[in-house]
Amino acid sequence: MPVIPGKETTVQNLRIPGPTPCPPETLSELSRQMINHRGPEFADLQGRIVTRLKAIFRTQSEVYVYTTSGTGVMEAAIVNTLSPGDGVLAVSIGEFGDRFADIAEAFGADVTRLSFEPGTAAEPAAVAEALRARPDAVAVLVTHNETSTGVTNDIAAISKAVRAVKPDVLLIVDAISSLGCIPYAADAWEVDVSTTCSQKGFMIPPGLAFISLSPRAWAAYERSTMPKFYLDVGKYRDYAKRGQPPWTPAVSIYYGLDTALEMMTKEGLEQVNARHYAIADYTRAKVKTLGLTLLAEGPQASDTVTSVRVPEGVDAAALLGLLNKDYDTVLAAGQGKLAGKIVRIGHMGIVEREAIDAAVAALESALSRLGYKRPAPAGA
Amino acid sequence: MPVIPGKETTVQNLRIPGPTPCPPETLSELSRQMINHRGPEFADLQGRIVTRLKAIFRTQSEVYVYTTSGTGVMEAAIVNTLSPGDGVLAVSIGEFGDRFADIAEAFGADVTRLSFEPGTAAEPAAVAEALRARPDAVAVLVTHNETSTGVTNDIAAISKAVRAVKPDVLLIVDAISSLGCIPYAADAWEVDVSTTCSQKGFMIPPGLAFISLSPRAWAAYERSTMPKFYLDVGKYRDYAKRGQPPWTPAVSIYYGLDTALEMMTKEGLEQVNARHYAIADYTRAKVKTLGLTLLAEGPQASDTVTSVRVPEGVDAAALLGLLNKDYDTVLAAGQGKLAGKIVRIGHMGIVEREAIDAAVAALESALSRLGYKRPAPAGA
Repeated sequence: MPVIPGKETTVQNLRIPGPTPCPPETLSELSRQMINHRGPEFADLQGRIVTRLKAIFRTQSEVYVYTTSGTGVMEAAIVNTLSPGDGVLAVSIGEFGDRFADIAEAFGADVTRLSFEPGTAAEPAAVAEALRARPDAVAVLVTHNETSTGVTNDIAAISKAVRAVKPDVLLIVDAISSLGCIPYAADAWEVDVSTTCSQKGFMIPPGLAFISLSPRAWAAYERSTMPKFYLDVGKYRDYAKRGQPPWTPAVSIYYGLDTALEMMTKEGLEQVNARHYAIADYTRAKVKTLGLTLLAEGPQASDTVTSVRVPEGVDAAALLGLLNKDYDTVLAAGQGKLAGKIVRIGHMGIVEREAIDAAVAALESALSRLGYKRPAPAGA
Repeated sequence: MPVIPGKETTVQNLRIPGPTPCPPETLSELSRQMINHRGPEFADLQGRIVTRLKAIFRTQSEVYVYTTSGTGVMEAAIVNTLSPGDGVLAVSIGEFGDRFADIAEAFGADVTRLSFEPGTAAEPAAVAEALRARPDAVAVLVTHNETSTGVTNDIAAISKAVRAVKPDVLLIVDAISSLGCIPYAADAWEVDVSTTCSQKGFMIPPGLAFISLSPRAWAAYERSTMPKFYLDVGKYRDYAKRGQPPWTPAVSIYYGLDTALEMMTKEGLEQVNARHYAIADYTRAKVKTLGLTLLAEGPQASDTVTSVRVPEGVDAAALLGLLNKDYDTVLAAGQGKLAGKIVRIGHMGIVEREAIDAAVAALESALSRLGYKRPAPAGA
């Protein structure tokens, strides 16, 4: 089992889709002393961070850093661009797609939900069809990478499909578990609002979340009447001129982010994306050697989290408990409709093959203790 | 100048009202490796933290930990207890009192503002009078300690005064820069919503904020129709049963908080409060030896931040710039109406007399370089 840097209590193989184990380079930064978030040192820090985040979002627009978790910027995406009563098409392929729709409804949007079977990606043609049937919709909400199922949507294709129906519709994307790991291109794909957060591909702990708005989204902001204050992106835009966020930021996580972005920039974004693909591919192949099946296959299979079907007769909660207790291996449970049916293996951020080997070996041993027998190979 | 633990870039006397310099005991915790926020280790951590926070809030009600800065829980206090159109009396003695009113208005409350001169506390009788004139008001918003002026309101007296007019009115308190420093007693004072955050008295960085609701506030929650999702305290209540927050929390700051609360518990809350009074009193006396005057005097003077009037002929921005550049001393600027008129010295959390001595010595030298001459003592 790989020894993960940190305290002895955390010699744990944490294989959940965020927070991810962080490398010592970023973790050590978190213990730095405080600075004045209204002073010149912080303005320098914020300037460096935003420049590099723009490159990672692949956007010319500004990126704003919020002190929230990912759900905070999902809400920010909604309340800054929409008004109560607005028609919204919410595309869902799992729990996080449902959450996006729930947020829009909580703030009074008139939401049509288009759901796809868990384990499958959204069909661009079906999304276009649903938009045609809802001609008053001003926005389409979609998840780039659905953490609850381990499926990646094709945002470029969805964007093309919805723009063919309604060129000016707002495309609002939850890229929380993809951006920085799986290729993403806000401007080239004509995404209007892109959101992500710190504890996934950025190799740092949770606490910060990032959002970027296209010029079209900024025009929508001017019209938007949903109430907002803490999440009001206009306040972020105004304070950014002074190199500050409007509210006191989680300074420690900024320190880690600064280092993480330097590491990612040095490695090169294409290489970071390629590395995520390679470890995901390795994970999928390795899991299959146990005779287990994956929830998602093919190009839609996520490069940041792999969902493994729990074999017939094995109790998922018992499996996760045993892995945690006897193997110091933490996998994630299924959520919603998939509760009890899958376990999920996270592989985002810095992941060595040895960590995947250890997780799969633990899974094999724990499953065997719970009565699982590998099926005989076909034809044997 | 005291060397503050941390990296060489931070050998700085950071004397602002938050974030505060953190002791090595809490800072070092921040570099610990991640754990699963949906697992048993996190539930243990959250359990310990909440138990101790309740003691520090002096409440029997639950305390919930949000991943936001202080403004986030101010908004949570409003949106979880009020409905659009509700009458609200917003008592303001400065920028943060104004902010509370702004948040309520942003979410559609019908706000009457009662403002007191900067540098003075709210008069309980005047608050009662204003509530009598606004008989439909369902809530009174008030700041316990106003960071922008360095003034502390008498919440016990204000509570008594408003309850005499309207026993069931919701008393919603911003205790952000007081709780954990200045005596506070949520239950004994019959406060309905208490809010505070991590980077003030708790000796840890920003990123977490805390909120507690009385049974009366929970009844208001059930009636409240202001829209909410990320800040929805009902979701926090539901997830608390599993020892989790609803959204991925800033785990690193929880680690620091756990240690900070252990330190505060060991020291004893009365002693923590007494220590803050002693260092504040020391600061006020020390500043006066320079012939400078304070914005607030007497019992209303804050024990966490001291506002010093900038002498005639001295440019406040130049003074703060010089202190930062040549003395590694960071004081806070005046805000709003007090911009350019005061500088503020923070003394919350762990503060040694040496840090105050160094700040006042730096202030003396910088003022002298900017042409300030200490007035001759009266009668000399």
